Amino acid sequence: MKINPVKGTNDYLPEQVRLRDYLQSQILNVYVENGFEHIITPAIEDAENLDKSEGGENLNLIFNILKRGEKLESVINKGVTADNQKELSDLGLRYDLTLPLSRYIANNQNDLLMPMKCIQIDRVYRAERPQKGRLREFIQCDIDIIGSESSDSESELILTTAKALKAIGLSDFTVRINDRRLLTNVLTKLGFDRELDSVCISFDKMDKIGLDGVCSELSEKGFESEAVNNFRDFLSRDSITLEYIGEFLSGEGAEPVESLKNIMATCNELSNNSFNIEFDLSLVRGQGYYTGTVFEVVSNEFKGSVAGGGRYDRLIGKFIGRDIPAVGFSIGFERIFAILSENGASCADTGKRIALLYDAGNFVEAAKEADKLRADGLIVSLFIKPKKTGKFIDKLEEKGYSGFINMSVKPDIVYF
Amino acid sequence: MKINPVKGTNDYLPEQVRLRDYLQSQILNVYVENGFEHIITPAIEDAENLDKSEGGENLNLIFNILKRGEKLESVINKGVTADNQKELSDLGLRYDLTLPLSRYIANNQNDLLMPMKCIQIDRVYRAERPQKGRLREFIQCDIDIIGSESSDSESELILTTAKALKAIGLSDFTVRINDRRLLTNVLTKLGFDRELDSVCISFDKMDKIGLDGVCSELSEKGFESEAVNNFRDFLSRDSITLEYIGEFLSGEGAEPVESLKNIMATCNELSNNSFNIEFDLSLVRGQGYYTGTVFEVVSNEFKGSVAGGGRYDRLIGKFIGRDIPAVGFSIGFERIFAILSENGASCADTGKRIALLYDAGNFVEAAKEADKLRADGLIVSLFIKPKKTGKFIDKLEEKGYSGFINMSVKPDIVYF
Repeated sequence: MKINPVKGTNDYLPEQVRLRDYLQSQILNVYVENGFEHIITPAIEDAENLDKSEGGENLNLIFNILKRGEKLESVINKGVTADNQKELSDLGLRYDLTLPLSRYIANNQNDLLMPMKCIQIDRVYRAERPQKGRLREFIQCDIDIIGSESSDSESELILTTAKALKAIGLSDFTVRINDRRLLTNVLTKLGFDRELDSVCISFDKMDKIGLDGVCSELSEKGFESEAVNNFRDFLSRDSITLEYIGEFLSGEGAEPVESLKNIMATCNELSNNSFNIEFDLSLVRGQGYYTGTVFEVVSNEFKGSVAGGGRYDRLIGKFIGRDIPAVGFSIGFERIFAILSENGASCADTGKRIALLYDAGNFVEAAKEADKLRADGLIVSLFIKPKKTGKFIDKLEEKGYSGFINMSVKPDIVYF
Repeated sequence: MKINPVKGTNDYLPEQVRLRDYLQSQILNVYVENGFEHIITPAIEDAENLDKSEGGENLNLIFNILKRGEKLESVINKGVTADNQKELSDLGLRYDLTLPLSRYIANNQNDLLMPMKCIQIDRVYRAERPQKGRLREFIQCDIDIIGSESSDSESELILTTAKALKAIGLSDFTVRINDRRLLTNVLTKLGFDRELDSVCISFDKMDKIGLDGVCSELSEKGFESEAVNNFRDFLSRDSITLEYIGEFLSGEGAEPVESLKNIMATCNELSNNSFNIEFDLSLVRGQGYYTGTVFEVVSNEFKGSVAGGGRYDRLIGKFIGRDIPAVGFSIGFERIFAILSENGASCADTGKRIALLYDAGNFVEAAKEADKLRADGLIVSLFIKPKKTGKFIDKLEEKGYSGFINMSVKPDIVYF
């Protein structure tokens, strides 16, 4: 039998779990204080729901669950081929918390207060190619506001996420924000008349390959040279501001400009400018289901994205045939856990942790003593005194115990 | 797209999640106070590990995960038949927390303090036939002690589990206890010389089909009539006590009698007889991996088992070729959640929950007011004042809010 956890998953040691539990409870507390409510959705979803969810690249990363019993037999008896292999599976593991939430809202709308402000802190699964920092089982911490078209929701999600990040010690970050509609409107006016998604995917690489690289890629993809040239001209300036875009669109399709300005001003005022919020036309984000605002948080201190989200006004409609506006923000818990662990963050016990060593045969006496100490608020672990007591005591200290009692000597705590 | 959660899984509403979170945190707190440490193992396991785990009936209930990419292609190209269908899957969802824990110990033994006292509160999956109370995704709350042969571990697990059950309001329960070895020794002396597991499975039905029923079943299974008659004679008395069994075995194979007596006396003394602990020779429990003591908790008030466990001294050895003694106790969280929910248990918020209603356009002012109230310890949810304000306020009360503020009238809390 194999002793390693499945590739891309982790066994967490007690000291790691203390930190994980602490971080998650801090995040949950901030979310709850700010009026969001914790809900739970299943980690397994209908395979068809996952397939039709417009999850972008994530759709290629779904773990599919094999049918069982007669249903599986019947597929095998028919003969399994590359064409019908989808029939092998009826369920899958969710790749994010947004699709299950959308189904949840569709299923429970009559039992929920709307607008619904909800929290999910839970596991998701993606069959990523294993590499450093890419897990196949990982935690996301999401807040969503369902049932409100107002951009107040965007402001509230950004401000609440910022509070949660600060609560766990990440205070130096920048929020990047964009609106998918703005990007679409700009590209249309520049002369792109098809496959805007493909243009966006290239544009998203601006950080990595620069404007020349993006333009070459667009030409290679077969977009007309006029559109590509317009694109190059439009972007050939130091900073692409909301004002510049507003003027370029001159009223036509410029509504998102006002909405973004409003969100940015609101966040600046309510956060006392304690973090930067920057417009970034090149911010796209992968999921196909986003319909409006998209945003992410980049850690200035540790680089890289630590949270991301956006508006998905048409996902719930896929379940009930009637659109319900929705917007969400997801903290990538594992990235933050990795950053904080690597930087030596650790988490003290909620109380002092003491080991009580007793001689074999004296369990009753030892347990009574332990219960007394527990009533005083101590955490007490009972151990039969091992032969190599000294070595064991060293190990206790190494493992974060505050002290020990050697009952056969005297019933007092020896603190490290 | 389908709006229902996958068969056998649940969407949990906010009021249900408040209760679930509360119960889990109470259980976790008791476990931690008593010196156990929280660990986390992945929900997905290697398919072979699951298959070889001696999980009894549960092995037929595993959700298998389909291979991906080239590995799946290669199986399909070879041709999938009933014989090689296992090759379709390389991973599975765990059916309990004991197998992943055994692998975890094997994998991390050098980084752990041994004996290891650990906690897992997490999801497991079983493809049960859907019926009332049988979930396919559910929570177990386990404590285990790894690395100690002493029956003090059994006492500690029983006492700690009892404390946890009392902490969540279940106080009227009975602990049933047995030792697999005792049962084996008795059956051997009665003349059964093969398929003792099969005898145990029949014996386990004593509650349901009575002694006559069990004996008929044993005869039908082809066991020799002398053994079956001995079995009937041995069990034809009102109560099968430990003393009676001790005398019957008269020294030979009677060691577990002393160990059980010791555990029972220890639990009685340390719990001040606040619950019953009863020997029950017919207690078997399904898992094949149990090697010694087995126990379960039955609620007297609500009937049925709410926790179960036992000693599994040879499971970790299957990973590392060297046995490490181990014993665990698992609370069946869903059964308890169902009992408490049906009996009207609910869970107040940690603080007062207030809705703050504001007019569209006034978000900044409203959010500032909300942050002030939050600093005073209130939970504040912001809502744009809906057209049907009265109806919305009724819904707030129904959903457990403590009160509301109508900012356009005055910024004071109106409590329900």
